[in-house]
Amino acid sequence: MAKNVEGFEFEQRHGKERVRVARVWKSKDGKRHFVVEWRVSINLLSDCVNSYIRDDNSDIVATDTMKNTVYAKAKECSEILSAEDFAILLAKHFTSFYRQVTTAIVNIVEKPWERVSVDGQPHEHGFKLGSEKHTTEAIVKKSGALQLTSGIEGLSLLKTTKSGFEGFIRDKFTALPETRERMLATEVTALWRYTYESFYSIPQKPLYFTDKYLDVKRVLVDTFFGSPKEGVYSPSVQSTLYQMGKATLNRFPDIASIQLKMPNIHFLPVNLSNKDGHIVKFDDDVYLPTDEPHGSIEASLSRTRSKM
Amino acid sequence: MAKNVEGFEFEQRHGKERVRVARVWKSKDGKRHFVVEWRVSINLLSDCVNSYIRDDNSDIVATDTMKNTVYAKAKECSEILSAEDFAILLAKHFTSFYRQVTTAIVNIVEKPWERVSVDGQPHEHGFKLGSEKHTTEAIVKKSGALQLTSGIEGLSLLKTTKSGFEGFIRDKFTALPETRERMLATEVTALWRYTYESFYSIPQKPLYFTDKYLDVKRVLVDTFFGSPKEGVYSPSVQSTLYQMGKATLNRFPDIASIQLKMPNIHFLPVNLSNKDGHIVKFDDDVYLPTDEPHGSIEASLSRTRSKM
Amino acid sequence: MAKNVEGFEFEQRHGKERVRVARVWKSKDGKRHFVVEWRVSINLLSDCVNSYIRDDNSDIVATDTMKNTVYAKAKECSEILSAEDFAILLAKHFTSFYRQVTTAIVNIVEKPWERVSVDGQPHEHGFKLGSEKHTTEAIVKKSGALQLTSGIEGLSLLKTTKSGFEGFIRDKFTALPETRERMLATEVTALWRYTYESFYSIPQKPLYFTDKYLDVKRVLVDTFFGSPKEGVYSPSVQSTLYQMGKATLNRFPDIASIQLKMPNIHFLPVNLSNKDGHIVKFDDDVYLPTDEPHGSIEASLSRTRSKM
Amino acid sequence: MAKNVEGFEFEQRHGKERVRVARVWKSKDGKRHFVVEWRVSINLLSDCVNSYIRDDNSDIVATDTMKNTVYAKAKECSEILSAEDFAILLAKHFTSFYRQVTTAIVNIVEKPWERVSVDGQPHEHGFKLGSEKHTTEAIVKKSGALQLTSGIEGLSLLKTTKSGFEGFIRDKFTALPETRERMLATEVTALWRYTYESFYSIPQKPLYFTDKYLDVKRVLVDTFFGSPKEGVYSPSVQSTLYQMGKATLNRFPDIASIQLKMPNIHFLPVNLSNKDGHIVKFDDDVYLPTDEPHGSIEASLSRTRSKM
Repeated sequence: MAKNVEGFEFEQRHGKERVRVARVWKSKDGKRHFVVEWRVSINLLSDCVNSYIRDDNSDIVATDTMKNTVYAKAKECSEILSAEDFAILLAKHFTSFYRQVTTAIVNIVEKPWERVSVDGQPHEHGFKLGSEKHTTEAIVKKSGALQLTSGIEGLSLLKTTKSGFEGFIRDKFTALPETRERMLATEVTALWRYTYESFYSIPQKPLYFTDKYLDVKRVLVDTFFGSPKEGVYSPSVQSTLYQMGKATLNRFPDIASIQLKMPNIHFLPVNLSNKDGHIVKFDDDVYLPTDEPHGSIEASLSRTRSKM
Repeated sequence: MAKNVEGFEFEQRHGKERVRVARVWKSKDGKRHFVVEWRVSINLLSDCVNSYIRDDNSDIVATDTMKNTVYAKAKECSEILSAEDFAILLAKHFTSFYRQVTTAIVNIVEKPWERVSVDGQPHEHGFKLGSEKHTTEAIVKKSGALQLTSGIEGLSLLKTTKSGFEGFIRDKFTALPETRERMLATEVTALWRYTYESFYSIPQKPLYFTDKYLDVKRVLVDTFFGSPKEGVYSPSVQSTLYQMGKATLNRFPDIASIQLKMPNIHFLPVNLSNKDGHIVKFDDDVYLPTDEPHGSIEASLSRTRSKM
Repeated sequence: MAKNVEGFEFEQRHGKERVRVARVWKSKDGKRHFVVEWRVSINLLSDCVNSYIRDDNSDIVATDTMKNTVYAKAKECSEILSAEDFAILLAKHFTSFYRQVTTAIVNIVEKPWERVSVDGQPHEHGFKLGSEKHTTEAIVKKSGALQLTSGIEGLSLLKTTKSGFEGFIRDKFTALPETRERMLATEVTALWRYTYESFYSIPQKPLYFTDKYLDVKRVLVDTFFGSPKEGVYSPSVQSTLYQMGKATLNRFPDIASIQLKMPNIHFLPVNLSNKDGHIVKFDDDVYLPTDEPHGSIEASLSRTRSKM
Repeated sequence: MAKNVEGFEFEQRHGKERVRVARVWKSKDGKRHFVVEWRVSINLLSDCVNSYIRDDNSDIVATDTMKNTVYAKAKECSEILSAEDFAILLAKHFTSFYRQVTTAIVNIVEKPWERVSVDGQPHEHGFKLGSEKHTTEAIVKKSGALQLTSGIEGLSLLKTTKSGFEGFIRDKFTALPETRERMLATEVTALWRYTYESFYSIPQKPLYFTDKYLDVKRVLVDTFFGSPKEGVYSPSVQSTLYQMGKATLNRFPDIASIQLKMPNIHFLPVNLSNKDGHIVKFDDDVYLPTDEPHGSIEASLSRTRSKM
């Protein structure tokens, strides 16, 4: 995408970030409401070098126009749709509507509004904010080529046992003891890429990608924890991460690759003493949780040569 | 609490904030695990003016010692207990152990780790982070006098209908139209004070305050939304807040007062046009959510003259 | 301010928070520009109980109207003015314009835009964001009574020597060694209350309070550090805090009281070892800075009985 | 770097993030102190697939060991050095000390502690936190190949005039008016890559890269604002960004490329009205600053084919 401009290799993009939109849909009788809240970011790769070097903005899509388009397109969606479908729809608009735009990149973070239950019944129009977030990115080229990625942000998981770390390299900078019993806590960030390579081939089933998001999340969580009675031993974050990624690819044929970031959020054993003896002696009971520093473990598994 | 020092009215406190501790307990067979993660802040009112004016620290409890005490006391708790009970236990320690300490103020924010379910069954040792947080503050005086407050932070609620705002003051600065149909979104911060005035009188039932927290939350949420089928009309945030506070006091005899902060987080109707006409015309469908600015509505209701 | 409502003690306020406004003024020839950016929060105490209990909003100043008023009043200010003067002007408006409003509380946080220098010369219209922030709060009653407080947020200071902590209480929970040589780091939050008790008595000099803010900041910083060559020994955060407060009151006769919060942000000595010996042995050279946990030290000094 | 593992394309890295270290150095007479505070992140690409698939950690450098190494290496640095030099030194250590490590990526963010002046004189051991931050990333391969990037984070700039935006694409989604007079505000993130391709070729002058950081910052700021009396007209963020990048490359021969992200942080003209007429009519005086949404403009200029 780099161009030669005045003797420099030159690459650029412009867009609008943090466009917030909420959309409400109603059942036919008007009683049951559905709501999504999205934070949309748009970036366009386009032929507009003249705005950089010649003070000529005639090839520029104003970022204010991009913002307006988000609202106009949300309005046009008369049926509830997934964040993925909205991202594709927007990206497709920009590449087809503007001669200058060669590629559109649309990111969406969905706020986790969940229908509340009152007296054991789902509420018709009441919602409460949950925790982890559903994300997506659609990259659409003028040719119709599509890259569709979905993800999870902020999925914090903790197991109080069945985790260890042994047999690693020991050298003069090593102080960490080996253990077969520790807490394991992480905040999973997952990104998975679908196999669909054009918007003609994506499933037409309503909320297909919303359901898929929930399914992938379940596989990740279940693999992390193991069975409810026995759990599963984790010999390292690396191993657990790999099992989670592998389970996802094995289960979902239309996922081409998955990237997982799983920081090791340390729960340090508390041992405190002074010259008179122990203040606290650790016995798998009292921990100091800390975010700073943390281990960082990330990896990607791809079914094919497709890269994230 | 103010003293006269070198001709000034003088007040002071010192403490340790953001002490993070996690505590794990196990069932007798070691299978089922329970975990809490607390962020503890301690502030002491004590006779230590000499440290300020005479470079004499002999009456100072080092904040590092306070931190160590959190871990030592967590260790001593051999049975699972509520954040409230731990706050009281810590505060009581500081006022009884140190001659100089007249009042101890202990705040705890509990991270919302929730037991996960795998295959429909609760997991023995697996936990996932939820959203809103349970908080508490215990203020204990050397005399044994106690003020115990509990609260919720970050309870984000949204209803897509049954909300309006009409009949308010109109003047030359007023532009807001009246409406009987709008979104209502807020992030509730609640603080309620218990009637117990000494630590001898608090209920001995294990996890009494943890259960109470869940009960208060349910009353607040249910009152906000109304019945699952019909909901309840909100004529103003003020009115809804008042109903929530009143329901809490009416339901729980050992709650003396409640303070509610309910920012009005606006979901603005989207109307956009240019000289050629409408880009988006609002029809209770497309909204712009925004945190900045937001309305701020807060009130407290007390059963008696007791103040928050 | 509490009322009896339906058998409850009842207190309430409502307002608009995070109203952002920037105001530009120009010199007569239009060349030199001046800019302020303020985040304004307004809270009104007013007679509007009926909105809570009777679904009657007729005594409510809509928060949207408050927001509009901020912009309208900023427009009316044809000359540059301090955040303090703007807060007073706004608060005065609300108490005088609305029969129902008994007290108005206006908070402002000013973004630290500082004029840049280019080629050693101040730029006519170029600004760069600095670090610590100027804050103010004006509380105005219908009677004309005024409480005016100004402050600093986020003033982070660090000295690499001339700090110690000795002679504190030692007990079975104490592990901290005594020292006469440590880092001292803090993030000062200061609030000082002016003596002016009505808006008739405040100084009419333009930017009086802006200049005063800079003067107080200088006294606080200079007292914290001591002379450029020798510095000054700090036997405790408490002692340094007290010297800073005292210097402020001694220097500025129209400041009635000052409150200082000075968390002790720890720079922990790094000592690391394993069974083969030291990995790092501390020699006043390598530190681990941490925000969590931190000591919290706060105190207020008042010239008179006036409280913060 | 991808490997084939159990039929998947597999890529991985692991490391330690947010390792905080402060280092103090003293002049020979012990009087003048120098301090840096760094937040270090390390990521290693290494041959340790067995930890993922075979529960065999024998090729894993524990992230705790990486943390210890940061402190050990900081200790070894007996003379003050730049963040760049420390990043290179660390990265070099990991690739040379561990057979398994093929590439080390070290990121450092330096806290902007600035020497204070008291009574017009620089203080021997007193420091105050400034605003924007110096960052760096060193990528070192076992072969000795080096990629060295430096950057600025959080450089917030504002000009109150000499900015416009005209002649852009107008279509049915466009509402933005054309203008030759607006505020221009941004928070610059800059990354520039040095030409040095091995650690043998980097300049040996102490603090070379620290000085260079200050020089680049000055060129960026001066180009953004133009001369102190006249300024310079900005026809678009794009154009201003390009001038800034070009000036940097033209001025510094050892910078191979520069990437600039300059969000357009909008200061919206305030126009408010109701049916009785204007509440506020904009006259280049009253603005609503907002971060959400913002324009996003980014571009990179490279002297050669080298990419960021």
